Amino acid sequence: MNQMIAPTLETLTDLQQTLHAEIPLTRAMGVRVVRADHNGLVLGAALAPNLNHKQTAFGGSLNNLATLACWGLIQLLVRDCGRAITVVIQESHVQFLKPVTQDFEAISPPPPSAIHEKFLRMLERKGRARLELEATIHSDGDVALRFRGQFVAYDRARFQGFESAAVV
Amino acid sequence: MNQMIAPTLETLTDLQQTLHAEIPLTRAMGVRVVRADHNGLVLGAALAPNLNHKQTAFGGSLNNLATLACWGLIQLLVRDCGRAITVVIQESHVQFLKPVTQDFEAISPPPPSAIHEKFLRMLERKGRARLELEATIHSDGDVALRFRGQFVAYDRARFQGFESAAVV
Repeated sequence: MNQMIAPTLETLTDLQQTLHAEIPLTRAMGVRVVRADHNGLVLGAALAPNLNHKQTAFGGSLNNLATLACWGLIQLLVRDCGRAITVVIQESHVQFLKPVTQDFEAISPPPPSAIHEKFLRMLERKGRARLELEATIHSDGDVALRFRGQFVAYDRARFQGFESAAVV
Repeated sequence: MNQMIAPTLETLTDLQQTLHAEIPLTRAMGVRVVRADHNGLVLGAALAPNLNHKQTAFGGSLNNLATLACWGLIQLLVRDCGRAITVVIQESHVQFLKPVTQDFEAISPPPPSAIHEKFLRMLERKGRARLELEATIHSDGDVALRFRGQFVAYDRARFQGFESAAVV
């Protein structure tokens, strides 16, 4: 878990640039990297481009930000292992608990050290590894969204052109 | 279920305008209403604004389109009952089964007649009613995404300013 503590400004800037360059919808959503530390990766988004018919945040946007926080967290978790990876999502379960009425942030906490280490070991051995991550979005001090997703990371050098699962 | 068959062009145009006006991200995603009949409501989106880092469709965009297809379907299901309703999502479960490499469509089939009738009856009696709906997105003939969501519709005349659940 210590790998997660305080990635450099350069790493976080790269992550934000990668999101904006490779997933154009993140620009439309105004997604930004807020911070990363031992509590996890935090992504933020402005309310205005993500409004719904109730003038609160569109559930799809909340879900997207939570998904991206997990996706970004995996990028940070593997960044020291020197591998170019592709991360895809296989399954998600989301609870929408409360409306979000302001700009919002999604936080994805790092997995326990043992899970993180096993994930890196599998990636090394098999060239791919599965990881279940969570993310939450708060609103006025309460949990507004609880996201749980199954992700798979592939070592690009060993799985070029694969057609498994899908996408983040 | 017969209420679903062939809504007028005006109804579908209204639905598309509502989506674009009230959920601005649908414009960024290029969401359009394709058709509605006894098979369900079909929404479409272009690949270009919804790309991910693999040059396939971003999972968040796929999830959004499926969510919106269910949301729109509920609008069509209640349109003959003369009520102004607000539809929110409470929970979703999504399986990402295959990458999507082209423009894509989400179809949300209407619920069985008995479920539809019970839903309208509860909306009449209680002013709110829950409905579980599904949506799928296909790619090259296979199911690429399978979405299941719990939605709640509120009669606006009876639940003004409510702060339950969240958002679509």
